[in-house]
Amino acid sequence: MSRILIDGHGGDNAPQVVIEALQKILSDGKSPNEEGSIELGVVGQPEILTPALNAAGIAGRVEVIPAAQTIDMCESPAMALRRKKDSSIHVGARQVRDGHWDALVSAGNTGALMAISKFILKTLPDVDRPAIASMIPAIDGQTLLLDAGANVDSSSEHLLQFAVMGSCYMQAAEGMDSPRVGLLNIGSEDIKGTDVVKVAAAELREMDLNFVGNVEGTDLFLDTVDVVVCDGFVGNVALKTMEGVARFIIHNLRRELSGSLSAKMGTLLARDALKRLKSKIDPAEYNGAPLLGLNGIVVKSHGGANTRAFVRAIMVAHREVDSNLREYTVEAMNQWTEN
Amino acid sequence: MSRILIDGHGGDNAPQVVIEALQKILSDGKSPNEEGSIELGVVGQPEILTPALNAAGIAGRVEVIPAAQTIDMCESPAMALRRKKDSSIHVGARQVRDGHWDALVSAGNTGALMAISKFILKTLPDVDRPAIASMIPAIDGQTLLLDAGANVDSSSEHLLQFAVMGSCYMQAAEGMDSPRVGLLNIGSEDIKGTDVVKVAAAELREMDLNFVGNVEGTDLFLDTVDVVVCDGFVGNVALKTMEGVARFIIHNLRRELSGSLSAKMGTLLARDALKRLKSKIDPAEYNGAPLLGLNGIVVKSHGGANTRAFVRAIMVAHREVDSNLREYTVEAMNQWTEN
Repeated sequence: MSRILIDGHGGDNAPQVVIEALQKILSDGKSPNEEGSIELGVVGQPEILTPALNAAGIAGRVEVIPAAQTIDMCESPAMALRRKKDSSIHVGARQVRDGHWDALVSAGNTGALMAISKFILKTLPDVDRPAIASMIPAIDGQTLLLDAGANVDSSSEHLLQFAVMGSCYMQAAEGMDSPRVGLLNIGSEDIKGTDVVKVAAAELREMDLNFVGNVEGTDLFLDTVDVVVCDGFVGNVALKTMEGVARFIIHNLRRELSGSLSAKMGTLLARDALKRLKSKIDPAEYNGAPLLGLNGIVVKSHGGANTRAFVRAIMVAHREVDSNLREYTVEAMNQWTEN
Repeated sequence: MSRILIDGHGGDNAPQVVIEALQKILSDGKSPNEEGSIELGVVGQPEILTPALNAAGIAGRVEVIPAAQTIDMCESPAMALRRKKDSSIHVGARQVRDGHWDALVSAGNTGALMAISKFILKTLPDVDRPAIASMIPAIDGQTLLLDAGANVDSSSEHLLQFAVMGSCYMQAAEGMDSPRVGLLNIGSEDIKGTDVVKVAAAELREMDLNFVGNVEGTDLFLDTVDVVVCDGFVGNVALKTMEGVARFIIHNLRRELSGSLSAKMGTLLARDALKRLKSKIDPAEYNGAPLLGLNGIVVKSHGGANTRAFVRAIMVAHREVDSNLREYTVEAMNQWTEN
């Protein structure tokens, strides 16, 4: 069983989406003590959350952990860390640290979630900086991109840590034997890229990882690599560019397919195929980015997530609780630093 | 009239694609002395190019400028610069420098094209580093992204120069009055990003540009900004990610639409709409990246460009010759450095 605590106040559509996601999981769910079952809690302002849970008819099945403060999406992470000690993220992270819950899921301010989680949970041994890992759809599979935005100006050493953390995640949580790890660069040749990337590539070749070398932005969506490592600035730009292109294409697809009668009829006939396409490229299907390298499980949901996407983020946390990611990572980091 | 010299050996499909593109332009074209007409030349190994032009029936209409050497796609730019003084790129750049031709178009090794062009043509006054500018399709318009990969580890000062160069390009070559310039970052707030980006944002606010602040990867495809400025590593990753997503979506669209009889029939009916969609997102439609900041016109075509895409790259050069970009840029850089 996994015990997942949800931030009741993070994201653009809180607490509505949070409550609906809880409702959905409970209506689909197994009974509380069955294997693979989930115990759910929500952390935040009881005066808002309890009536909402009541209205949704799930008040008795979701524990409310009180937290008086909320953190705005635009608030400075450093300020939130120092001044909002009773925020839902602070309280949630402490609950995970103290073993009352197995994982925290939040759609809130990413920087604050990372800063507070790092401060309260600390990092795993030998990890300097945790990273946000984002799953990306690819032809015949998926690719884990990290760091997706927690760290700007990552050093070579940080990139190596991300490589170990990402590889361990794909092994422990996704059951891969020997994940292919690539380094995001602007060409496959050794001479390409910044000094930081060149040094990282040379070191990665020596490590006990299935390192496939430099990869490019196009490789993210191909079956050539499973884990792509990069600085958080670069990773965040790549992710948001991806989101932008997908929206742009869907916008144009819609516009074109409603343009003429024959296009409209065609769309009607191809409806199921287009639906499957949409679900294949829908960011909601890939929502839930684990913060890797922390001494505790924290999963970030997209701030604009809808109910289905938020359910998926909770399921990412559930899977991580059920895996032995912590042990994998600690051992791999330990092996590496001993060599 | 513009006189455009084409590298006969650059790219994956040279000289085939080059010859076909020349053929296409000549068959569509105006007579040589008409306004807006193009005079075409090709630079490279005559023993290869002359027979190919003969076979295409355009030998008398395209001048061949002999160059004995070719540069491989994987060759180190520094080595190519030093050791291949008689390469098609070297000879082509010298022809432009000496005023025999107005512009050089090449689908060859990007790094070598940039290094050799910079060495031979030099930069415009006050420009430290030229940049590759890439046009991106956007909803109701297009966005110019620079630098798309010429420079890694750009300083704040370089980013400011890119901003001026990009803004001037959109004015001179695209006829925009007051292009909106954005700085690519991982959030719109001032506190986001690296120190380099933060300093650049503060300076851009003080400059005589229509600076709209930080933008994100998603903005590239929206009608919120016309010129997006970033370091070449970041820009290249963004571009290739964009290419990867578009291919991924088209792959899935094809697969889904050929999956069932009703989907196939629907596709048939919606054929024209899907064709228009494809042309809207086809990288070929946006081929031709000017190298900005050089004291001479050089345009880079995608190495994998097909004939239609290559024609477009030549047209980008043609338009730049016809514009007064050089004067715009020199004046804007001068105004800025005097302040």
